[in-house]
Amino acid sequence: MNIRKVKIYGTGKYLPGRPITDLEMDDRLGVSRGWTRRVTDIVARHYAGEDDTASAMGAKAALAALEAANLKFSDMDCLVGASGTKEQALPCSAVFIQQALGMEQSGVPAFDIDSTCLSFLAALDAMSCMIAAGRYRYVLIVTSEIASVGLDWRHKESAALFGDGAAAVVIGPAEDGEPSAIVGASMRTYSAGAAFSEIRAGGTKRHPNGYRPAGADDYLFQMDGPAIYRMASRLLPDFTEELLRASHTSMTDFSAVIPHQGSAMAVRLMRKKLGIAERQLVYITPNHGNTIAASLPMGLHEAIRTGRIARGDRVLLIGTAAGLTLGGLILDY
Amino acid sequence: MNIRKVKIYGTGKYLPGRPITDLEMDDRLGVSRGWTRRVTDIVARHYAGEDDTASAMGAKAALAALEAANLKFSDMDCLVGASGTKEQALPCSAVFIQQALGMEQSGVPAFDIDSTCLSFLAALDAMSCMIAAGRYRYVLIVTSEIASVGLDWRHKESAALFGDGAAAVVIGPAEDGEPSAIVGASMRTYSAGAAFSEIRAGGTKRHPNGYRPAGADDYLFQMDGPAIYRMASRLLPDFTEELLRASHTSMTDFSAVIPHQGSAMAVRLMRKKLGIAERQLVYITPNHGNTIAASLPMGLHEAIRTGRIARGDRVLLIGTAAGLTLGGLILDY
Repeated sequence: MNIRKVKIYGTGKYLPGRPITDLEMDDRLGVSRGWTRRVTDIVARHYAGEDDTASAMGAKAALAALEAANLKFSDMDCLVGASGTKEQALPCSAVFIQQALGMEQSGVPAFDIDSTCLSFLAALDAMSCMIAAGRYRYVLIVTSEIASVGLDWRHKESAALFGDGAAAVVIGPAEDGEPSAIVGASMRTYSAGAAFSEIRAGGTKRHPNGYRPAGADDYLFQMDGPAIYRMASRLLPDFTEELLRASHTSMTDFSAVIPHQGSAMAVRLMRKKLGIAERQLVYITPNHGNTIAASLPMGLHEAIRTGRIARGDRVLLIGTAAGLTLGGLILDY
Repeated sequence: MNIRKVKIYGTGKYLPGRPITDLEMDDRLGVSRGWTRRVTDIVARHYAGEDDTASAMGAKAALAALEAANLKFSDMDCLVGASGTKEQALPCSAVFIQQALGMEQSGVPAFDIDSTCLSFLAALDAMSCMIAAGRYRYVLIVTSEIASVGLDWRHKESAALFGDGAAAVVIGPAEDGEPSAIVGASMRTYSAGAAFSEIRAGGTKRHPNGYRPAGADDYLFQMDGPAIYRMASRLLPDFTEELLRASHTSMTDFSAVIPHQGSAMAVRLMRKKLGIAERQLVYITPNHGNTIAASLPMGLHEAIRTGRIARGDRVLLIGTAAGLTLGGLILDY
């Protein structure tokens, strides 16, 4: 066991623009009415407008989280950007979130942690250790994703899954006597599955200056859903059992289980394979879609906001990311 | 003081291809013979070839670091990619380093930490806390940069500065009685300087599918050297004094000071402003150029390899990154 006395002080969420309904998506995808709803279980997702930036969205979620925490940005010792997408190639996205907050002269350290869809989980894991080690006191973790600009509309099953949005969480030390803690965490990466979900170009291997419209799909998100499903099915049960055992806890101990909302099918897979009860499951796919790394902190935010979890309740965050990476984190809220 | 009993077990470095000499650069830039040497103090830098990938370069540096540490990849509990550039837009670069090491089925968690040129420093800071908190035991930090694909050759002063390369460091807990420790660390980000060094496009704000040859400069590295110089000059002295004071140490305590080799001018600035003595300075610019985030771990590697620092010696890593971010880390090797 490796318990860290770290507490979630506040959470916030921001969705850009207006909701895009399932029927609008049917039209956009050129499929029969009802297809999007039936295949994805998504009723509405949001897409950022042309003027929305990931940093501006992240700043709005951050302000909401700070307000919920009853803290100010000046109380923060560190700002972590935890997204699977970047606002621009360089510098890191946290810099632009600091700027969008109007805190350009604050000096608050700003850097990114990237584990694709599990970036928030990786950041919460790492930053709770920085707090436990006494390096930082209050840390603001901001996840903001604009998936919509990188979708390949020729692949309807994949394009229909995503939504844009941001979420933020303020963490800090738990006081003596408070029940809050990070109880356990585990990540595993199997790069044998690296090609199962990827954007092949856009980095140093295939620089954007090689972009040609004919090869545009290399710059867009590509996914082999069945391959991810098979690999996750095979690996998730043992992974989860190991995490629970190491944390001396069992599935029935959780007031809420918040899975990464990769797709309705992925959530169903986790429910079935891991024995998550209906009353435990936090399922926000229908009104958000897959918001990449923002999915987990959004689920956490919604669970808190709707009173699904109260102080001291045990919560499991779990999911998979491109990599293929598995991640799980157990916390007492 | 916030001392972490963490030790550097081994370091490794890899430079791709053959050295590009200063005279070759003069020809390439179309300047008079001697210009490159005079302006940059760089005698030779390396450029990755068409078949070199950042992950393959990183894997070579990682194997060298593991050998120096007398450890195997299977001993590692985590692999962190700590680069300012990405191999492809998604997933994170650490995944491809794991793959390039032939460890696709290892399950070793792999994620990225990005603070542009200070990514290694940010990673060493964060991961030493994860070790101190008992979350991981051995961590492999790999930095691998291919700067050469993103240079704007119309800006000779900036294009002449960079080199490609990789460096890796294995860290883990120091045993009782060993002198090794992370003695102090500090980062500060002032996003007022975000536009001073950047690649404006290539992310969600300006997606590569908007690439047009006429606007290629937006996808290439742009730098306002004088603005960085002014901001760094103003902020670095107080930043460093505060770090030293918090760590109860003074500049004369360091056996070696390893600055980020942003440019010969940046290193001179730090020497002068911070009172670094000639005998303390680790200066690798002439044979490497600015290798982005690989610069600091390369400097550390060279200082160890050449016997400039021995076990227990106090070392300062210091520099600035796009952001603008200042970073410093004090370690007893």
